[in-house]
Amino acid sequence: MHRAESERPATLCGMNRVSDDDMVLVPGGSLMTKTPEQGRALALMLARHTIHNIQPDLDVLKGGRPNYSSTPDSLIDAARVVAIEFQTIAAANGYWRD
Amino acid sequence: MHRAESERPATLCGMNRVSDDDMVLVPGGSLMTKTPEQGRALALMLARHTIHNIQPDLDVLKGGRPNYSSTPDSLIDAARVVAIEFQTIAAANGYWRD
Amino acid sequence: MHRAESERPATLCGMNRVSDDDMVLVPGGSLMTKTPEQGRALALMLARHTIHNIQPDLDVLKGGRPNYSSTPDSLIDAARVVAIEFQTIAAANGYWRD
Amino acid sequence: MHRAESERPATLCGMNRVSDDDMVLVPGGSLMTKTPEQGRALALMLARHTIHNIQPDLDVLKGGRPNYSSTPDSLIDAARVVAIEFQTIAAANGYWRD
Amino acid sequence: MHRAESERPATLCGMNRVSDDDMVLVPGGSLMTKTPEQGRALALMLARHTIHNIQPDLDVLKGGRPNYSSTPDSLIDAARVVAIEFQTIAAANGYWRD
Amino acid sequence: MHRAESERPATLCGMNRVSDDDMVLVPGGSLMTKTPEQGRALALMLARHTIHNIQPDLDVLKGGRPNYSSTPDSLIDAARVVAIEFQTIAAANGYWRD
Repeated sequence: MHRAESERPATLCGMNRVSDDDMVLVPGGSLMTKTPEQGRALALMLARHTIHNIQPDLDVLKGGRPNYSSTPDSLIDAARVVAIEFQTIAAANGYWRD
Repeated sequence: MHRAESERPATLCGMNRVSDDDMVLVPGGSLMTKTPEQGRALALMLARHTIHNIQPDLDVLKGGRPNYSSTPDSLIDAARVVAIEFQTIAAANGYWRD
Repeated sequence: MHRAESERPATLCGMNRVSDDDMVLVPGGSLMTKTPEQGRALALMLARHTIHNIQPDLDVLKGGRPNYSSTPDSLIDAARVVAIEFQTIAAANGYWRD
Repeated sequence: MHRAESERPATLCGMNRVSDDDMVLVPGGSLMTKTPEQGRALALMLARHTIHNIQPDLDVLKGGRPNYSSTPDSLIDAARVVAIEFQTIAAANGYWRD
Repeated sequence: MHRAESERPATLCGMNRVSDDDMVLVPGGSLMTKTPEQGRALALMLARHTIHNIQPDLDVLKGGRPNYSSTPDSLIDAARVVAIEFQTIAAANGYWRD
Repeated sequence: MHRAESERPATLCGMNRVSDDDMVLVPGGSLMTKTPEQGRALALMLARHTIHNIQPDLDVLKGGRPNYSSTPDSLIDAARVVAIEFQTIAAANGYWRD
């Protein structure tokens, strides 16, 4: 998880970089959502954007996708991250009880 | 966990896509259930539907199943995701104490 | 974790299926137990029954057991799932403080 | 994590079985401890006894130990289980704040 | 996770060591942040600085980066750590509800 | 995680054993710390001392270190344990809010 300093001005070296919108760590800037469905979508986004921040090179991300997304163990691991993010979001929203 | 944009209009390219119902992130739209048994079933569903959203290609999902579902380590990993989802659902329901 | 639809009417195709009792997701239908010992036993059962629901074929389950149950890493992974389930059950029971 | 029924009357078949004391899931029968140190020791015990319950054959347990206990990744995995158990115990004890 | 004592006076042996700023475990000295975005950035930093403390040799850290940062499974694992750190930070900040 | 009884009187057999201080499970005997920085340092120590208790042989610990501490995946796994321990310590300290 070490941040390679040399990657920061990435676009300068011609890297096909993730868009600025996809680099925002908390899209929308809040953990509050109206519905569990939206909370769940936010959980997925939080996980994705973390990964964008660690690895902002789109070509590397797309290159790895076919492999992991067809490997059940990787999908289960990804689902676990989403489950953890959702715990936070659900607690933030009082579990949308009302 | 990067979302391949090109996969979104998946049915257009003839992919055998997970049904729309199976793509809903929170089936029923609520974390509230009447019983722990139903809460547990929801936990299983949440985990499954996350995976559907990351990998919506039914053929890939079915292709991977024989392998992972007969591998104890994969089953244990899947059980862990369910355990985490259930923590959220159980807390949401006040642990069905009454 | 994709549910193979074709497996549901499993007994019809001669699969040696986990008993109906072992398929119940929350045996006893409640997270409440009188003692921590019983809570711990429930945690073990929850984890086992999740796995039964993902893989209901007894022969596959028994076939995998010799391997995983003699592999320390697998035992540790299984213990982690139990630990997570127990967090939920212990919280539900107010940690059996009185 | 499937329980092999045939292993239950294990001593009958000459298995070198974990002692009854080591099979108790919650030694002492309570999550309450006087000090964090004792709480931590209980966390270690909970994790160990879970494993005893999944794999009660002492020879198998001892056979696997040299390997896992000299493998850093396995030690880290074991430490994670202890960390999770400790979360529960620490919460139960109000974090020994007073 | 054992701390090799001999590594402590690392700069003395010519190791290219992580900067002192990057060795601080909690940059800023507080878990409080104004926004979820800043909380998320702190979560990423906490995870990174833990790793700096375990492995303070910059060359080793940079040497490992190309490999893990292009491996989806490693990225998912890293995202999980961030998700766990964020749980703590979000709870500390009352989920930035107001 | 099985405790090999034969290892207990370890110094008697000439094992280069972790010091008694490094075997204490909760150094300082409390989860309370003045600052987040100290809380984080305690989290690192808790994780390390767990490992010392499972594997008290210094030579084995040091022998494994070069390998795991230069493997990103192992570092990420170690960081996860620290993150979990920190959750407990941060909660114990009310997140050092005041």
